[in-house]
Amino acid sequence: MKRILTGDRPTGKLHLGHYVGSLKNRVRLQDEYECFFIVADLHTLTTKPELKDTQELKENIYQMVLDYLSVGIDPEKATIYVQSQIAEVAELAIIFGNLTTVPRLERMPTLKDVMRDAHITIPSYGLLGYPVLQAADILMVRSHLVPVGKDQVSHIEITREIAREFNRVYGKSSQSTSEESKPTSEVSGQVFPVPEALVPEDLGILPGTDGKAKMSKSAGNVINLSDTAGEVEKKVMNMYTDPKRIHATDPGRVEGNPVFIYLDAFGPENLKSQISNLKSRYTKGQVGDIEVKKFLVKVLNNFLDPIRKSRARFERDPELVERILKEGTEKARSEAQKTLEEVKKAMKLDYFMD
Amino acid sequence: MKRILTGDRPTGKLHLGHYVGSLKNRVRLQDEYECFFIVADLHTLTTKPELKDTQELKENIYQMVLDYLSVGIDPEKATIYVQSQIAEVAELAIIFGNLTTVPRLERMPTLKDVMRDAHITIPSYGLLGYPVLQAADILMVRSHLVPVGKDQVSHIEITREIAREFNRVYGKSSQSTSEESKPTSEVSGQVFPVPEALVPEDLGILPGTDGKAKMSKSAGNVINLSDTAGEVEKKVMNMYTDPKRIHATDPGRVEGNPVFIYLDAFGPENLKSQISNLKSRYTKGQVGDIEVKKFLVKVLNNFLDPIRKSRARFERDPELVERILKEGTEKARSEAQKTLEEVKKAMKLDYFMD
Repeated sequence: MKRILTGDRPTGKLHLGHYVGSLKNRVRLQDEYECFFIVADLHTLTTKPELKDTQELKENIYQMVLDYLSVGIDPEKATIYVQSQIAEVAELAIIFGNLTTVPRLERMPTLKDVMRDAHITIPSYGLLGYPVLQAADILMVRSHLVPVGKDQVSHIEITREIAREFNRVYGKSSQSTSEESKPTSEVSGQVFPVPEALVPEDLGILPGTDGKAKMSKSAGNVINLSDTAGEVEKKVMNMYTDPKRIHATDPGRVEGNPVFIYLDAFGPENLKSQISNLKSRYTKGQVGDIEVKKFLVKVLNNFLDPIRKSRARFERDPELVERILKEGTEKARSEAQKTLEEVKKAMKLDYFMD
Repeated sequence: MKRILTGDRPTGKLHLGHYVGSLKNRVRLQDEYECFFIVADLHTLTTKPELKDTQELKENIYQMVLDYLSVGIDPEKATIYVQSQIAEVAELAIIFGNLTTVPRLERMPTLKDVMRDAHITIPSYGLLGYPVLQAADILMVRSHLVPVGKDQVSHIEITREIAREFNRVYGKSSQSTSEESKPTSEVSGQVFPVPEALVPEDLGILPGTDGKAKMSKSAGNVINLSDTAGEVEKKVMNMYTDPKRIHATDPGRVEGNPVFIYLDAFGPENLKSQISNLKSRYTKGQVGDIEVKKFLVKVLNNFLDPIRKSRARFERDPELVERILKEGTEKARSEAQKTLEEVKKAMKLDYFMD
């Protein structure tokens, strides 16, 4: 069974954009792969190291994991763990830092984007090394596949380089012939599998309720998975639609109209023809925004209801959630320890082990 | 009792230059301070990550620690430990990386020197971050003082900046008032003491046997602490003296003449007048190089004899040496764990502790 690593920075409650962009896919992936879902709190420090940010992490983690569990990520199938609680990831990152260069990291196209978005003018050392820490996350569990958006493929590329470089420098083929008889995975000469990016083709980026290209917490245009039916109704009724349409009798645009994008994303199979009909009437000016929005409210609340019920169940048992996180972290740690032990063996840094 | 952290990269057997430049001082410091002596093998990776280098580390550590013990570093007083065996130092380094910037590290005057000496044209990420890892070493044991040469003072400066920045961002004064009642060292608002460089004034740099300014393994101009009496004799008899002096009757230069520098460094009190007399005759052309060198051989072997005896005793008991290293590493790890726990508490990353 191939392994997958993916996850999120703990920014708190997740929204419909997360569902469409990753959660939905993860629920499917956990049946086909051995999945590790990382709560990447150390990554948060690279752009938000201040106490006002770090003191929110614990609650953010709790809320995010509640969402994971509510949408159907199953701790019996997948491992959910907290990055900062695993010392080995830091040890691996320190080792990997010697296998990539400063200019290579400075050329990462994502660095400029992150700095612009976070209003950072001078990068911290940690921010420059963010892809190295990410390589440690991925290789720590010997992941074969990493589901990422297209904009993140460059990060997987640097992870692949580090894995290859480690295998080249410390792999079996570099070792002296007298040690050929070890019965481990080193025999193949590969300490690490070289992971591949898994770029899901059918996943879209969900626009915000304000019509902006991306739903995001910082833009304040989100519908959270944990929003109440009333909150959803209020947000949908205030949604951006086709700005050129003044009256219900004006012909409206369906393409790029978030109301219809949401209907396509969350409308169940048995409502497809009704949605199709609504679109046709909308383009002809035969239906008002309010009717469409009321329909969307129903669709979204039908979609969210089982998630809300599941969330409420887990909310009543915070100790269970903590236990899930603890056990997941222990499992990931045990994988990390195995990997680090093999890494140190390959590097001949296993002084005290023999 | 104030704390000190200092140490070496494990390059193997130590030489007289190490003795004069640091070991002699350390033997004295261990009585006045709580000393931690780090075997900084992770630092070796920043310039020498290749397997041909890392596979030598274990033997290098063993030889170096034999030298430590032979000159009188006492594991009952001081803690000798191996950096790579302590996960917490990596965790601290990852955290500290967010508290200093890339340009700050690029401005380190030592970076250029190290790159030139190691023939490195493009720095690895690890090499750029070397001072961050060093800050983690120093602050991990909450060291108050760090004995360094003048060229290393800039490293202590960046450690001080990181300690201050950590205290500013996560120290007590940043915490909300509702938590004022904690009975820890945080009360002072300082998670870390801000360490100071201890630049010993009376320690010189010992020239090489070839007259070069510095004795160093890579220059091949060393007398090792573990050299036999015969090896010392051979090396001394081939030593560089005053190149302008052809005959024993030529007036010679004492200043900058390594033979006399060694005599000053290693001649015991009761031979001071004899050395003084020798210098005077040398400047007047009344003594040959051979006589001076034979005298130096005696002085050095007298100095080295007890060290050799001590070394032989430890060499007969490699398990004792390993136990000393293991116990020292365990003690350092326990300090590191305490520090990291307080660090995570201050940062509110102690999710699973309450």
